[in-house]
Amino acid sequence: MKINGQSYRTIWPSADGTAVQIIDQTKLPHLFETVTLRTLEDAAHAISDMLVRGAPLIGATGAYGLALAMRTDASDASLAQAHDTLVRTRPTAVNLKWALDTVQAVLSPLPPRERATAAFAEAARIADEDVETCARLGEHGLDLIRAVWESQGRSRPVNILTHCNAGWLATVDWGTATAPIYKAVEAGIPVHVYVDETRPRNQGASLTAYELNSENIPHSVIVDNAGGHLMQHGMIDLCIVGTDRTTANGDVANKIGTYLKALAAHDNGVPFYVALPSSTVDWSMSDGLRDIPIETRSPREVTHITGLAGNGRLETVQLTPTGSAAINFGFDVTPARLVTGLITERGVCAATREGLTGLFPERR
Amino acid sequence: MKINGQSYRTIWPSADGTAVQIIDQTKLPHLFETVTLRTLEDAAHAISDMLVRGAPLIGATGAYGLALAMRTDASDASLAQAHDTLVRTRPTAVNLKWALDTVQAVLSPLPPRERATAAFAEAARIADEDVETCARLGEHGLDLIRAVWESQGRSRPVNILTHCNAGWLATVDWGTATAPIYKAVEAGIPVHVYVDETRPRNQGASLTAYELNSENIPHSVIVDNAGGHLMQHGMIDLCIVGTDRTTANGDVANKIGTYLKALAAHDNGVPFYVALPSSTVDWSMSDGLRDIPIETRSPREVTHITGLAGNGRLETVQLTPTGSAAINFGFDVTPARLVTGLITERGVCAATREGLTGLFPERR
Repeated sequence: MKINGQSYRTIWPSADGTAVQIIDQTKLPHLFETVTLRTLEDAAHAISDMLVRGAPLIGATGAYGLALAMRTDASDASLAQAHDTLVRTRPTAVNLKWALDTVQAVLSPLPPRERATAAFAEAARIADEDVETCARLGEHGLDLIRAVWESQGRSRPVNILTHCNAGWLATVDWGTATAPIYKAVEAGIPVHVYVDETRPRNQGASLTAYELNSENIPHSVIVDNAGGHLMQHGMIDLCIVGTDRTTANGDVANKIGTYLKALAAHDNGVPFYVALPSSTVDWSMSDGLRDIPIETRSPREVTHITGLAGNGRLETVQLTPTGSAAINFGFDVTPARLVTGLITERGVCAATREGLTGLFPERR
Repeated sequence: MKINGQSYRTIWPSADGTAVQIIDQTKLPHLFETVTLRTLEDAAHAISDMLVRGAPLIGATGAYGLALAMRTDASDASLAQAHDTLVRTRPTAVNLKWALDTVQAVLSPLPPRERATAAFAEAARIADEDVETCARLGEHGLDLIRAVWESQGRSRPVNILTHCNAGWLATVDWGTATAPIYKAVEAGIPVHVYVDETRPRNQGASLTAYELNSENIPHSVIVDNAGGHLMQHGMIDLCIVGTDRTTANGDVANKIGTYLKALAAHDNGVPFYVALPSSTVDWSMSDGLRDIPIETRSPREVTHITGLAGNGRLETVQLTPTGSAAINFGFDVTPARLVTGLITERGVCAATREGLTGLFPERR
């Protein structure tokens, strides 16, 4: 998608094919900077410190991380160690492991001297496939937005609420939750997006708002507390969020607070959709609340926040009294019963085992 | 309650009786400063700019504001104009109007020369009455906390979630939602409080955390998104929140986001209590969602935030991209069906018309 009128992906190989470039998302929305990853450690740091984030982009970065590791040492031991290092960077994101396993499966049978080139090619293929997946998913989600637009007699913009950033910045391009929005705008349907700021890391206020702003799509940032009130008063037509991991029965792990919005949607009859590439489905799990590990992150993400100071520099300020503890859970699980439907690259289905295996019969 | 070991109320007359002192709550938790209010305009500004906030404290400040106005001009016209000025400062808080009406009713029959003295006396009576009301309410809430403590075989601290600041800083002393907590600690019951930070103004992270910290009560600040996850995992024993206005049938207007926590409590079988002095009941209203006016506040509260910078000064930083709009609703309405009980100065009752009139038969 576009930044300052120029088209970007979130990750791309450097011109000489020996390194990878990313957008440093920790500096957005205030500064646009790209960073070059040259080593396994660069890639692991980019994931763990969230220079890149979002399940699909983490997967693509992990894949390129293996490729960077192979440039230094393409032995079996190095491959295993690089896989191990990368898979530990973010425990909740299931398609990080999927991407690493995919690349590893391609590399293992190859002689070490062929592994670096093959790894770059496989990582590029994973990135291209992600773009294609998100584009298809967007087309299916577009149908849902179009249906709202038509049902309202094309009388006013379709109001969509989203949480966190499941935007193109979380993927390689298009995004998951935002893909239907971008496709709707392309199709001439007017939309207005309510953007949950998404504390503590504010990916909504910083990244989703930045994306929508860059694409000139009407949007309003709201605090995470506001969505229930908006739904009570008919101000939201549908919710679309992303997911870091979905169980085979349709339970959805997504950014902390997603569950609260799903409850409000359910209480007010507002459709609540989750957009996901099928790579984020964990077919081995059937009880998200019991089984999905939820990472706890640094309390400092709660007690401090970074923004643009009057002097034009990024400043970090303390929000809580010195001496007050803070606890910081990264994700929550929205039970399938609160999810109206799953938007996948093969179509929209019910958030049930039957719904998912209807679209993905090979997983039956 | 105590700050740095010294007992305070949130509002008190100056030594010579010609002015009123308050704590500037916009500077908390980083700076403790008191401010002297000498005029009607000082009082109106203190309320509208939230140097004082919280329904009961707003009421007491309004009462003293009328007294300050009477010192300058005690005519009928001045009394009416002062009432009008003050009542407009915060439209949602019902007991601001109650306090102003109470003082006005005392002053109207008096000759102007007696009004200033009578107004100060009446404002002091309202403040004392608020302290007494909160202390009683706290005793009734203590019974609920004690019941949890006993039902768990006194095995671990009682985990309480609260939203915003319905603490002693929101009242004259004790607080509403916090009064049961302070009373429980006084009674030797161990508690741990999860404090919603309460965006956009962060009254939880700044004021409730500050209060609890000052009283050495164990607590953890969480983002507003986290409470649902905690309740799903049995980490909350009960929720206690305050209210700015309660309808005769038990609908509760409180800080934006309260409704989302009530939904999560309901979904997980966690008791959800609302603590209120009966002065916050609007006996004329029976449908909170339809009838309670919800103030919209400046988008800047969403787009910018103030905290303590590394240089020890308060700094304001921008969180959103330049060009992104923001919308800021101050309150939401929690329907009575989601409220387990109302904690009042006369006891705990169901959030129904019958429950309320059982305790307040004079309102039947």
